[in-house]
Amino acid sequence: MKVFSILLVAFSSFTLSFNSCFSQELLNEKLDLMPWPKEITSNGSITKLDENFTISINNKGSRVYNAATKFLRNLANKTGVFINEGFPFYNRENATLSLVFKEVADLSINTDESYELVVKNNKIELTAKTDVGIVRGLSTLLQLIKSDGSNYNFEGFYVKDAPRFKWRGLMIDVSRHFQPVDLIKRNLDAMAYVKMNVFHWHLSDDQGFRIESKRYPKLHQQGSDGVYYTHEQIKDVVAYANNLGIRVIPEIDVPGHAAAILAAYPELGSNDNYDYKIVRDSGVFDPTLNPTKPEVYTFLDNLFKEVTPLFPDEYFHIGGDENEGKHWDSNVEIQKFKKKYRLDTNHDLQTYFNIKLEKILRKYGKKLVGWDEIRTPSMPKSAIIHSWRGKNEGFENGTLIPALKNGYHAILSNDYYIDRMLSVEHYYNCDPIANANLTKEEEDRVLGGEVTMWSELVTPLTIDSRIWPRTAAIAERFWSSKHITNVENMRKRLDKVNHELERIGLTHIRNIDVILRNISDNQEILSLKILSRISEPLKVYQRNKGGIEYKTFSPFTLFADACSADAPDAYAFKKVVSAYKLNSNSSNAENVSLFLNKWEKGYLNFKELHHSPNLVGLNFHYKNLAEISVHLNKAIKSGKYSEKDKERIDSLLNEIATPFVDVEIVIIDSLKTLSNHLNQKFGLRENVHK
Amino acid sequence: MKVFSILLVAFSSFTLSFNSCFSQELLNEKLDLMPWPKEITSNGSITKLDENFTISINNKGSRVYNAATKFLRNLANKTGVFINEGFPFYNRENATLSLVFKEVADLSINTDESYELVVKNNKIELTAKTDVGIVRGLSTLLQLIKSDGSNYNFEGFYVKDAPRFKWRGLMIDVSRHFQPVDLIKRNLDAMAYVKMNVFHWHLSDDQGFRIESKRYPKLHQQGSDGVYYTHEQIKDVVAYANNLGIRVIPEIDVPGHAAAILAAYPELGSNDNYDYKIVRDSGVFDPTLNPTKPEVYTFLDNLFKEVTPLFPDEYFHIGGDENEGKHWDSNVEIQKFKKKYRLDTNHDLQTYFNIKLEKILRKYGKKLVGWDEIRTPSMPKSAIIHSWRGKNEGFENGTLIPALKNGYHAILSNDYYIDRMLSVEHYYNCDPIANANLTKEEEDRVLGGEVTMWSELVTPLTIDSRIWPRTAAIAERFWSSKHITNVENMRKRLDKVNHELERIGLTHIRNIDVILRNISDNQEILSLKILSRISEPLKVYQRNKGGIEYKTFSPFTLFADACSADAPDAYAFKKVVSAYKLNSNSSNAENVSLFLNKWEKGYLNFKELHHSPNLVGLNFHYKNLAEISVHLNKAIKSGKYSEKDKERIDSLLNEIATPFVDVEIVIIDSLKTLSNHLNQKFGLRENVHK
Repeated sequence: MKVFSILLVAFSSFTLSFNSCFSQELLNEKLDLMPWPKEITSNGSITKLDENFTISINNKGSRVYNAATKFLRNLANKTGVFINEGFPFYNRENATLSLVFKEVADLSINTDESYELVVKNNKIELTAKTDVGIVRGLSTLLQLIKSDGSNYNFEGFYVKDAPRFKWRGLMIDVSRHFQPVDLIKRNLDAMAYVKMNVFHWHLSDDQGFRIESKRYPKLHQQGSDGVYYTHEQIKDVVAYANNLGIRVIPEIDVPGHAAAILAAYPELGSNDNYDYKIVRDSGVFDPTLNPTKPEVYTFLDNLFKEVTPLFPDEYFHIGGDENEGKHWDSNVEIQKFKKKYRLDTNHDLQTYFNIKLEKILRKYGKKLVGWDEIRTPSMPKSAIIHSWRGKNEGFENGTLIPALKNGYHAILSNDYYIDRMLSVEHYYNCDPIANANLTKEEEDRVLGGEVTMWSELVTPLTIDSRIWPRTAAIAERFWSSKHITNVENMRKRLDKVNHELERIGLTHIRNIDVILRNISDNQEILSLKILSRISEPLKVYQRNKGGIEYKTFSPFTLFADACSADAPDAYAFKKVVSAYKLNSNSSNAENVSLFLNKWEKGYLNFKELHHSPNLVGLNFHYKNLAEISVHLNKAIKSGKYSEKDKERIDSLLNEIATPFVDVEIVIIDSLKTLSNHLNQKFGLRENVHK
Repeated sequence: MKVFSILLVAFSSFTLSFNSCFSQELLNEKLDLMPWPKEITSNGSITKLDENFTISINNKGSRVYNAATKFLRNLANKTGVFINEGFPFYNRENATLSLVFKEVADLSINTDESYELVVKNNKIELTAKTDVGIVRGLSTLLQLIKSDGSNYNFEGFYVKDAPRFKWRGLMIDVSRHFQPVDLIKRNLDAMAYVKMNVFHWHLSDDQGFRIESKRYPKLHQQGSDGVYYTHEQIKDVVAYANNLGIRVIPEIDVPGHAAAILAAYPELGSNDNYDYKIVRDSGVFDPTLNPTKPEVYTFLDNLFKEVTPLFPDEYFHIGGDENEGKHWDSNVEIQKFKKKYRLDTNHDLQTYFNIKLEKILRKYGKKLVGWDEIRTPSMPKSAIIHSWRGKNEGFENGTLIPALKNGYHAILSNDYYIDRMLSVEHYYNCDPIANANLTKEEEDRVLGGEVTMWSELVTPLTIDSRIWPRTAAIAERFWSSKHITNVENMRKRLDKVNHELERIGLTHIRNIDVILRNISDNQEILSLKILSRISEPLKVYQRNKGGIEYKTFSPFTLFADACSADAPDAYAFKKVVSAYKLNSNSSNAENVSLFLNKWEKGYLNFKELHHSPNLVGLNFHYKNLAEISVHLNKAIKSGKYSEKDKERIDSLLNEIATPFVDVEIVIIDSLKTLSNHLNQKFGLRENVHK
């Protein structure tokens, strides 16, 4: 402990001498940190990474030892430097990197995650109150490595950092499509990389119950198609997350979304004549636990008694969403029950259910988190309201603010439904608080937010590409100051993070090619890649119309699955068109032409491929896109673009604006802008010439 | 059982009507089956795959149900067809595919894996004696799907198949680099895809002891760096393998290769003054169990008592290799012991040890497998000798034949050390028996072979690319007739299998780009890919000179790690040069030029990249290769190539023939051939012109 105090003193005096020689804006052009830290100043020094790099730790504890060892592997793998010492030391003098912390945190909603980092003149000091702070600081340090062309160096900086929100979560739905342990672990690594701290594990739903139960074995035997987590696997994941300073909040969704539970134990259902089965479609279904049966509470009590010890966190998520009550309405006994207990509405009945549930969970030391619907007058204020509803569900201003106003702590998810496949910009611009009219107390009750990855349309092959990189930008929204809002700069930094996530094991980039190779029957995929980079999967649940087109066992190895929510070339093209519109000089013209050439040549390559069943649906749009590209290119080069040309191109543009194979081409607006601009610029002149 | 008999009768009469309308040679040009079946005849029919595809199974059993369900997912994912029924039925009439088997096999060395498959006129019947035969037949059927450009179809065939060898194994060393469960599982999937049936799990070595021990917990706590398999994970892997008809043979290597064991329990070692630690280098090390101590046998007895129940197979591998006996020689007590028991050599002492071990294992119902060195006069004939030594270890004709001649059953690995990074052709040409002078009995004692993936230089990122696709060709050597030896045709079929392995989850192709993106600091990797396609990692252990250059924690994210043992463009280039040499017409010239252009342009792209530390080492060779390409291309086009030109090119070729960044360019011979040919063809003429 003595070492720590001395270092802290040295550290404090040291920081006073810093000069801030870059403004924050210049810094985030120069650096690719994400999330952006609270305070950062450059000192202009450079610390070269070489084989003599060493780490010293001042205190025992698996979190820091593990993070430091991983940090060494990351350094080696990222840079190719053969570091001599593959493991950290304890209290080693003259180590390159000193990790100094005071206490091992018992993870909770109030864990201190702050840290200070000084990188200067071949010495790096990272100090924090807790070991979790060290883990967060190491993520920052890893992002400070830059190549100068010949070597990798740590850029010299002083960083003082702490999160804006306490609850920075990612929910993964493992019911609709099961996600194996290693996949969860790599996503936990990615979360830690961008300093997220809550993994919400959506473990049960109509499409599968994913925890082994020794007390009720039919749950996993008949409710999971054989894919579920054993207790040991859950403990393994929880320990892995804990090492990264990530809390794990399990969710068992009741009383609705219960088809998988009822497939195993139909006697707990609200409709005795219903043939309960694991659901294969998407949507909201009728199977619901029967809140009037004492056996249901016995079941839940025993189940929670069994599973709560697996999850050390004080919170437990009980779902509670989207119970439409159809099976309650059609059950005479339930109607009688409601009358007897003066429960006027199904919502009242669900409240009755929730209150009982809350008591059971309290018995096992758990506080309750639940989706919006659990908020009823008798719900204790210790419960956290998880706000999922917004405009789309008829709540103009969402459901977060009413929860706060009613005295609840709350977390926001409505704005962070990444399965809606909206752009990174959209999510980045959503602030959990924004300009809401809240008192200080109410504002403090916003714990943070959660990204929700519902898995109707994702499999282990594609899930990483749906979560990342967009979630990294949302993680910044949760961690960084509300004033960090420059989208252009965020995109620049995100591009770097995107590749770093690949290096640490995420498959979001590499699996694109796997899908394209498969649909092409293993031909050259360049032309498909070109098309995929301007195509996005249909957004806001348009892809799976009515929820029945795709079943859980349908192929998710299609062209749409190789396209991302932020088509990279579409964004780049938009920028060059804007520039050209502003100033049609030859350099800007050339930048536009490069894209048009790419699409023209892409189609030429595409045409040369052997026919393959999954390529047929791409031909029409690709052909028209090529034709548009040729014409626009000609116009740019020739300076001729008549009204008639424009009409023809606009008509083709309307053709390719229609969705195809569950995607849409997202450069239509830019092409229209270009067409209009060319027409304004050249059309008149040409008419005059005539 | 009745259903089965009826179907068998129907089946037998049905097969009589087949006409063999293709010869075997034509068939393996037309089809991409691997391993090639024992008997196959085409019936020319086509069964279209559509959404109505269904499977019926005649008998219960998880192996077939699991394989059939996976088959449905494979069909959907491969073809994009939305199959209506995502699960197989039992005894369903008019199913598209009928799976008919008589018994659930209790996996052993004698499990019947034969099957018959009839694909004809929209009906597919797969019959087998055992459920394992069905699993094997489904792998064949999956390979019979072909696209006609608009649809995917099953080609119509009659196949009657059974393996040549009983033991078709893959060994994975998880000690030098730990390999996680999901990685093992995907490799088991790949093994099943090419009909391999033994997974040999090398679980302990100097670099790590990888099984949890409840009896001796320090083994995993202090001998594994925290990465090991729990009992549950082992059971999970064994069950997964069993479902695929794959036996799991564990190996705990004793008495040598024991540094990790002794790091945990130094009191069991042969040198009381030695500082036992987990080894970080590669090679053969001194730490050895002390065979004179009774505690060693107590330890092994307890350990085997604990772990043998995890592995249901009747065989257990005890290693036994490479004990150089240095610590035995230097230990006075051991010397006394040897004298007392008249054990003249260390080999005698090891025999003493092995005999005791054999008795312990017998107590737990296990027969013994061990590397060559366990074969001593007193070793029971029930033991299987695993032959790993060949010419490189001073055994001109290997060690397999002596073992057979001495009455042992044996399996061959010496020829299948894929970590030597030799070409697929090399391994494919090694027959386990070849033309050895053996009696029928001796030949029958060759159980088969095992591919060995030692993991000094492979990590989870790269291991798939070291195992596959070469192992698929070796799998054919183990399964198919010894007369299937056409390398050119094997390569054609392997190319298809290579991509199929990617689709089922292997990462051998996709991870190449991940490495290249990283070493380029995420720039465009096309130029690096071009170079990697003609470069191979140094072979036969030249990469890790002396075993100390790479430690277990060194980076394996280098250019060499992105290159494969069979550089694909090198092979293709060799062929076009040969053709051009034979007939220098313009079309053959064009084929050669295409490659030369590629390398020239590749270097131009490479030069445009920003400098990056890991690219520096590539420049010299790439530049020279580009220069060579430009000159040779000019010669081809101009018809001029003087002696002086040739001298200059040959000198450059000598330059780039030297290894760099742990790889070598493997088109040197082809370029020399081309240079010589051009000189012969044009040199003289040019001289005459002068």
